[in-house]
Amino acid sequence: MPTDSDSEARDAALPARVAIIGIGLIGGSLGLALRRLGVNVTGYDLHSAAAGHALERGAVDTARETPAAAVGDAEFVALCVPPAAQAPLLRDLALALPARAVICDTGSIKRQVTSAAHEILGPAGPRFVPAHPIAGREFSGVAAATEDLYRGCRVILTPAPNTEVSAVLAVERLWYAVGAAVVERMDALRHDRLLAACSHLPHMLAFALVDYLAGHEDDEELFRCAAGGFADFTRIAASDPALWLQISLANRDLLAVELQRYAGRLAELGKLLGEADADSLEAVLDRAATARRRYVDPRQRNERQG
Amino acid sequence: MPTDSDSEARDAALPARVAIIGIGLIGGSLGLALRRLGVNVTGYDLHSAAAGHALERGAVDTARETPAAAVGDAEFVALCVPPAAQAPLLRDLALALPARAVICDTGSIKRQVTSAAHEILGPAGPRFVPAHPIAGREFSGVAAATEDLYRGCRVILTPAPNTEVSAVLAVERLWYAVGAAVVERMDALRHDRLLAACSHLPHMLAFALVDYLAGHEDDEELFRCAAGGFADFTRIAASDPALWLQISLANRDLLAVELQRYAGRLAELGKLLGEADADSLEAVLDRAATARRRYVDPRQRNERQG
Repeated sequence: MPTDSDSEARDAALPARVAIIGIGLIGGSLGLALRRLGVNVTGYDLHSAAAGHALERGAVDTARETPAAAVGDAEFVALCVPPAAQAPLLRDLALALPARAVICDTGSIKRQVTSAAHEILGPAGPRFVPAHPIAGREFSGVAAATEDLYRGCRVILTPAPNTEVSAVLAVERLWYAVGAAVVERMDALRHDRLLAACSHLPHMLAFALVDYLAGHEDDEELFRCAAGGFADFTRIAASDPALWLQISLANRDLLAVELQRYAGRLAELGKLLGEADADSLEAVLDRAATARRRYVDPRQRNERQG
Repeated sequence: MPTDSDSEARDAALPARVAIIGIGLIGGSLGLALRRLGVNVTGYDLHSAAAGHALERGAVDTARETPAAAVGDAEFVALCVPPAAQAPLLRDLALALPARAVICDTGSIKRQVTSAAHEILGPAGPRFVPAHPIAGREFSGVAAATEDLYRGCRVILTPAPNTEVSAVLAVERLWYAVGAAVVERMDALRHDRLLAACSHLPHMLAFALVDYLAGHEDDEELFRCAAGGFADFTRIAASDPALWLQISLANRDLLAVELQRYAGRLAELGKLLGEADADSLEAVLDRAATARRRYVDPRQRNERQG
């Protein structure tokens, strides 16, 4: 349901100059989408080859050699780096941020970055809006970037009590402009808890399954016999392991709870199989198929993994 | 690697008349593909509405009211029914099978049907070739049937020691004709063990995950926050629960072993997270991503779930 602030966000002007720090899949896709809207984009990447590639692909207008230089006089700064790089980057930028710049990140976990920004950014802290565009692919790097990555996606913002309303609106506006279907706000802990269950847990299950099968005595033949359902099921296990190491460690308290609860359900399922308890087993399968069809299938939007 | 028997199978003539017993996704897709090749197809389905629908869709030339009537003077009989219906059907057909007809099934588990055919079919037993086309979709019924369902798929045959070689060749020929990329032979136990790991286990994990999330205190919001990766991961949980109940029960001894081993790996992963053991965690994620890319991605064939 659209609210007044949604319309405000949609009607507001886009920033003329945006700095993107970290030009991989996420930052590069944002750059492509913003440049198409006429926004001037300056970029920085730790790897100068990635910055060069981003220039070639048209994801940025200009690439600079330090985060501070990239920020320059930007009105909007997007931090598109892995979780472990966020706090060091905030420290690098604290003194370089233009006085009225609005800042957002794009990370998959929100508690740490929300408090880090508050601690590190000082007077700029209230203009930092933690953001998570729930979009992604199993490929990484600017080579995989696409200007429609965010079309139809959901973006969750986790502003702190002291975050400026105008900053939140500017961030909402930017994500709607690049194609988000929904931009919503929630508490950072709630975000991390929801994502632990619906994203981090399935990723761990897929990584664990492929690792298990790869170590199986019949590994090569197993993979040969696997069909398209297996390819779908394990697609997320092809995601960047370095990124997922950081995500799983950063959210490990909540993820561990979800893993343990899920393992409990799996043990129950094993017990039902062992006892050949057809009625209870059928109830599990029925509930799952019904929920999958009810919640997931109707949303054939252009969302990708996140 | 093609063998002599592969070429023999590819060169042999197709049967002129095929009977398909059970005209759902699997039987209906087989009928569509065979009719396109000029084969005359007679069908039977327990549900007369399904038989009528199969006629409308062109999946069969003729529908009959009993399995025995459908078999008539067919040279080839394909049993495309769920696991629990196989033995009763074999009993129905034992006396109705034409003297030289070759018979195959299409089930996902092979031990039971291999011994049932031996026990029930008497003199026709050696012409029964257990077959599993590893193809499928999360949709069921003849409405979901497509003539290219088997294009590029793998078919596993599990002939018994007394199975006639000419029958095996006829079954290979038929599956190659409808599009199979590979038709291979193995022991029924080995088949069931491989499929327990690469198909039945992932299905159970997906069913268990969706059931777990559907019973979660945040269920509706969880599903809203889930992105495309989740939709892929759980696609197999939208599969027909009644069919998967039968599959999981029929292969429950081997499936329980795989579930238990996988649960052990999941517990280790939970321990690594709890201890924030980044090195070991990274090793798991790395091995999985490498195996996923090595084994699964290169095979972008037209396989679907099975």
